[in-house]
Amino acid sequence: MTHPSFMELALEEARKAANRGEVPVGAVLTGNDGQILARDGNRTLELHDPTAHAEMLVIRAASRALKSERLVGCHLYVTLEPCTMCATAISFARIERLYFGAYDEKAGAVENGVCFYMKPTCHFVPEVYGGIAETEASQMLKAFFAARRG
Amino acid sequence: MTHPSFMELALEEARKAANRGEVPVGAVLTGNDGQILARDGNRTLELHDPTAHAEMLVIRAASRALKSERLVGCHLYVTLEPCTMCATAISFARIERLYFGAYDEKAGAVENGVCFYMKPTCHFVPEVYGGIAETEASQMLKAFFAARRG
Repeated sequence: MTHPSFMELALEEARKAANRGEVPVGAVLTGNDGQILARDGNRTLELHDPTAHAEMLVIRAASRALKSERLVGCHLYVTLEPCTMCATAISFARIERLYFGAYDEKAGAVENGVCFYMKPTCHFVPEVYGGIAETEASQMLKAFFAARRG
Repeated sequence: MTHPSFMELALEEARKAANRGEVPVGAVLTGNDGQILARDGNRTLELHDPTAHAEMLVIRAASRALKSERLVGCHLYVTLEPCTMCATAISFARIERLYFGAYDEKAGAVENGVCFYMKPTCHFVPEVYGGIAETEASQMLKAFFAARRG
């Protein structure tokens, strides 16, 4: 599978999250051979867990599956720029590459906010590719928040 | 129970973490009536989970117990200054007060590093009390890392 296809799956997880009433963010984590280790969407409300962002759920699932707290050589695809919590978890997990969709000025921590990967307290920096399928990811979030306000 | 006693329990969780071969950090989360909602220590190796810091484990356990992803009015006691991931999770959980032990220049995110609570991408700021039982918390960490290097 190619990169756009993995992001397409992440977008599918985001749509499923929206259908559950969650903020529509989805993530896919792939292993060394390009196999899918985990895919999930945001579940903070369903699980009563403020840490249950899509990225955290796939990192935790893949780590459990591989029986290792380090996901060396793995790639993460997520529809929104990771927040400060998730950006740090991605670094802790030693994920090799991060592909994200929409930029998040309000809460992002990769290209926005604390720009964690550029800071001395960040001890492992993934390769970062932002703005993949940005329009679709961003429109889904805008539609969700517009409907909630409406 | 008084504040020093809750930090004493957090130190006990840190000692238990050290005995399991984990980095010795412990945490206690208390509710509105001062009751203990959760207590735990670092379990990243045991659970194969890079996000299983003491703070994350007690936040997740308490949120599950209260069936709410927001821990309004709750207080967190942790033996080490929270890292960037945990500082953010504490903010997401709307924890009212954070008491921490040793300061962490290398990876802390409250008084060190990204100083997350002072940043515009942080949307809820807890009251922070640092340096509680700092000496004991700090000595435990130093002894652990000295033994590991030895």
